[in-house]
Amino acid sequence: MIEHSPHFKQLLKSLQQVPYLASKNIYRVANYFLSLDQEKAEQFCKAVQLAKQNIVHCRQCFTWNEKDQPCFFCDAAKRDKTIICVIETWQELISIEKTGGFQGLYHVLGGAISPLEGVGPEDLTINVLLGRIKEPVAEVILATNQTPEGEATAAYIANKLKNSLVKISCLARGIPVGSTLEFMDRVTVYKALSERRPF
Amino acid sequence: MIEHSPHFKQLLKSLQQVPYLASKNIYRVANYFLSLDQEKAEQFCKAVQLAKQNIVHCRQCFTWNEKDQPCFFCDAAKRDKTIICVIETWQELISIEKTGGFQGLYHVLGGAISPLEGVGPEDLTINVLLGRIKEPVAEVILATNQTPEGEATAAYIANKLKNSLVKISCLARGIPVGSTLEFMDRVTVYKALSERRPF
Repeated sequence: MIEHSPHFKQLLKSLQQVPYLASKNIYRVANYFLSLDQEKAEQFCKAVQLAKQNIVHCRQCFTWNEKDQPCFFCDAAKRDKTIICVIETWQELISIEKTGGFQGLYHVLGGAISPLEGVGPEDLTINVLLGRIKEPVAEVILATNQTPEGEATAAYIANKLKNSLVKISCLARGIPVGSTLEFMDRVTVYKALSERRPF
Repeated sequence: MIEHSPHFKQLLKSLQQVPYLASKNIYRVANYFLSLDQEKAEQFCKAVQLAKQNIVHCRQCFTWNEKDQPCFFCDAAKRDKTIICVIETWQELISIEKTGGFQGLYHVLGGAISPLEGVGPEDLTINVLLGRIKEPVAEVILATNQTPEGEATAAYIANKLKNSLVKISCLARGIPVGSTLEFMDRVTVYKALSERRPF
């Protein structure tokens, strides 16, 4: 049935490219778009296109920003310009911002080093980051993910910075708040033990 | 940060309305759209809009069809017009078509009766279905889901058809192929037992 409708095929093809849309839900989402009012469908497309046209990367920290506007982080008077938090993608920035506990600057790498996927240091924004490490920056927090790729990326950056005077730190590892030891994997328990803190 | 970008807020709002897009993935999908080439973003929007403009409900069976084209099911010479399979939504049609084991017609109800959600029989296409039950239709398969709502809907339709001469059937219940009894819920095991078939 779908094979007979070119518009349908094209819609499914477009939806298949959207990440985190489980393929078993593709038909449901296609059904959603087909059932939308014409007006709402146009609204959706307008939102995507306007966002595309008006939101660009900051050339320094690579966070998303409104075009032709000062960067929400780099150009903010209130933020602490002596500390840079390095993250893999922009989604992690949202997680950190939600805590409300960080007032410094960010640097979005655009991913992590992954030889298997053909991502090398030159594919990330590491060179721009190294260029940013100068006065007044005093500390770099390597907040990449706790995955082999994330840790390799952090190690690579730390190595590049070893001759610099900047302080390098990374996120604490341990038992997540609210969870029990019983159901925690042994590596996490081991790290929590060996990296224990004074009470 | 998001609060300061109207385009961003609008994009997130539009994405939040897409079903089956987990809210924890909204930022990732927003990131996907912002990272797309301008050309690909336009392609996506064009696919949605063209599909909207060119795909409409069949007025008889309520499946999706290319506009101004004969219905892929109702108007097909090859399909068995004596049997109608009644389903809740169009996604279930896809599941049945994938089996390749059904050559009759369909009827999409557009949902199931659910007093809690304010969906009554008049909100579904039940009246159109009742109008379709005439020569040459000899059998109606009530293939609504095995949920309280789906079964209530099937019971409602069966009741409406009780004075008609048409044969009413529903899908077999039992152990799914490839699964083990051990991990099956007791209601399914009970149904499989009580509705056992000759070997």
